[in-house]
Amino acid sequence: MNPTKRKIAIIGAGAIGCYYGSRLASAGEDVHFLLRSDLASVRKSGRLRVELPKSEIVVSGPSVYATPEEIGRCDLVIIALKTTANGVFEKLIRPLLKESTILLTLQNGLGSDEQLAALFGSERVMGGLCFICVNRTAPGEVLCIEPGAVAFGEFGRLAGERLRSVVAMFERAGVKCSAGDNLAELRWKKLVWNVPFNGLAIAAGGITTDKILECSELENQVRALMAEVIEAAAMFGCNIPASFIEKQISSTRPMGPYRPSSLIDYLEGREVEVESIWGEPLRRARSAGAKAPRMEMLYALLKRLTAGSRETKKPSP
Amino acid sequence: MNPTKRKIAIIGAGAIGCYYGSRLASAGEDVHFLLRSDLASVRKSGRLRVELPKSEIVVSGPSVYATPEEIGRCDLVIIALKTTANGVFEKLIRPLLKESTILLTLQNGLGSDEQLAALFGSERVMGGLCFICVNRTAPGEVLCIEPGAVAFGEFGRLAGERLRSVVAMFERAGVKCSAGDNLAELRWKKLVWNVPFNGLAIAAGGITTDKILECSELENQVRALMAEVIEAAAMFGCNIPASFIEKQISSTRPMGPYRPSSLIDYLEGREVEVESIWGEPLRRARSAGAKAPRMEMLYALLKRLTAGSRETKKPSP
Repeated sequence: MNPTKRKIAIIGAGAIGCYYGSRLASAGEDVHFLLRSDLASVRKSGRLRVELPKSEIVVSGPSVYATPEEIGRCDLVIIALKTTANGVFEKLIRPLLKESTILLTLQNGLGSDEQLAALFGSERVMGGLCFICVNRTAPGEVLCIEPGAVAFGEFGRLAGERLRSVVAMFERAGVKCSAGDNLAELRWKKLVWNVPFNGLAIAAGGITTDKILECSELENQVRALMAEVIEAAAMFGCNIPASFIEKQISSTRPMGPYRPSSLIDYLEGREVEVESIWGEPLRRARSAGAKAPRMEMLYALLKRLTAGSRETKKPSP
Repeated sequence: MNPTKRKIAIIGAGAIGCYYGSRLASAGEDVHFLLRSDLASVRKSGRLRVELPKSEIVVSGPSVYATPEEIGRCDLVIIALKTTANGVFEKLIRPLLKESTILLTLQNGLGSDEQLAALFGSERVMGGLCFICVNRTAPGEVLCIEPGAVAFGEFGRLAGERLRSVVAMFERAGVKCSAGDNLAELRWKKLVWNVPFNGLAIAAGGITTDKILECSELENQVRALMAEVIEAAAMFGCNIPASFIEKQISSTRPMGPYRPSSLIDYLEGREVEVESIWGEPLRRARSAGAKAPRMEMLYALLKRLTAGSRETKKPSP
C-alpha cells in the first residue's frame, strides 16, 4: 500500500460520481462515497457496478456514508453533484476539509468554481470537464456507453504539479485525461456544444441531436448559438476559433439519436441545470456587453419549460 | 330589396368565415358559403349560429355549397381560410371571378395579399385584420367572446370609395370597423402582438398569455420580439412607434388566461399558421437586412414543434 495515498471523498453518486469513484476505487485508491437516496440499496447489494462497452467494473464493499462527518477530513474531495444542488456545498464539504484539501468539481457549466472558491478559498479549487456518455441505471449501477475523456484545469491558475498528480491518478484508473492552463476556456468550450444541443433538444419538443441537425432552421440556430457562446467567451479572454463550430457539428452527426444529459433530466422529470448551462453564461455575456439574443431567448424558454418539472412529471423509476 | 346588392362568397367557414358571413347574411346581404367538412351537418341542421356574449345570431337556411362552380360569379369574395390552405386559392377562387370581383382576405400574417394579387391581379385585393375572439364550437356554430373590430385596407393603394363601401356594409352588419391607408402597416401592427404571444405560448410549453407575462424573462422576450417586428416593419416604410410595445403589453394583462389562436390550433392538433405569422415576416425582415435573431429562433422552434402536428395529435372533436 502506498503510504502517500490520498483519502478521497466523492460527493454525489449519480452517474458521474459513481463512474469515476468506482474507477478510482478499483485502481486501489482510498475512496469514500457520500450517498443519499441510494445508500440503503448500495449497502444491501454491497457493491458498485460500472458497465462498460466491453467490460465491467465491480467495487465490492465500497465505503459508503450518509454524512460527511462520518467520512472526516480528506485530501481530495470530488464534487459530482448536479449544479442545481450547489446550495448544499457548505453542509456537505466543510466537514471534509483540512488545510490542504483539494476540491475537484466535475460539474457542468459556469458558476461552481466561483461558489466553491467563495466558500472554501480559491486556492483549493480545480475542475474537470467530463466528455462522457454515462447513465445511472439503478442505485449504485451505471452504464457507460462512451468513456470519453476528462479535461482538467486549475481554477484561476496555470496547471502545475498538483494538477498533474491528480491527472496521473485518474490516468492510473484508466481515464483518458488532458490538462489545460485555462479552466474557464475549457468550460466555455464545453458550453459551445451544451448551450445549443442540450437547450434545443428540450425547447424543440424533446428531440435527439440528429433531429436537431435534420432541420436546417434548427441547425442554423445551433451555429448561431455557438457563435454567441464563442463571442461571450472571447470577452473573457477565452479565444475559441470560429472553426470550432463546424468541428462540433460534424462530430455530432455520427452520434445519431443522442439524448443530451439535460434532455434526459427533462424527460425523466429531474431538475435541469438551467442556471449553470444557460443562466450564468448569459449573465456573464451580458455583463461583458454581449447581446446574446438567442441565448437570452433559449434561457427564458428553458426556465419556463423546466419550472416545476419535479412536481409535475413522474420521476424515472 | 336593394337592386345594387352585392353577391358575396365566403370561402372557408371556420370561426372567422362563419362569424362575419352570418352577420352579413343576417343583415340582409346575399351571402353564399363555400363549405367542406361541415357541409352535410349544416345542410342537416339548416342553420348557422353565432353565440355572442349577450345575444345570438341564427341564419336559417343559409346558402351553402360544396364547390365554387355552384356559387358562380360574385361581386365580393371574402377569404377566411387558414393561410396553411392558401394552395387552394386558384381552384376555389377562379370560378367566382368576373372582371370587377373584389377579393377581401381576412387572413392573418403576411403573404396572402401577394399570393392573391399574383394569381388574380393586385387591383382586386383588399384585406381586413380581425381583432376578435371567436371559436368554432360545432359545424356551423361559433362562440364569440369578444367581437372586437376589423381594420380594413386596400392592397398597395390608399383607402377609397370601394373600400369605404365594403366597410359600410360590415358596419351595417354590426361590425366595428376602421379603414387605413396602409394595409401592410396594419398587418405588421397585428404581428407585433401575434409574433411574440402566439409564438411563445407554443414554444414555452403551451401556456396562456398571463403565464408568459408572469415570467419576467419571457416578458422581456415579448418586448424584444416586438422590437424586432417593429424594426422590420420600419424597413418597409411602416413606422410603428416604440411606445406601441408597452401599450400592447398593458392591454394584454387584463386578458387573463388568454389562449392565442395559434395555441388553440396547436393544442387541438390543427395546422398552425407558421409561415404567414413567423416565416414570411422573418424572410422579409432578412431580405431588408434586419437580423431578427429572436424571430429566427422562434420560427425554427415552431417549425419543428408543429411539424407533423396533424398526424401525431388527435384532431379536435
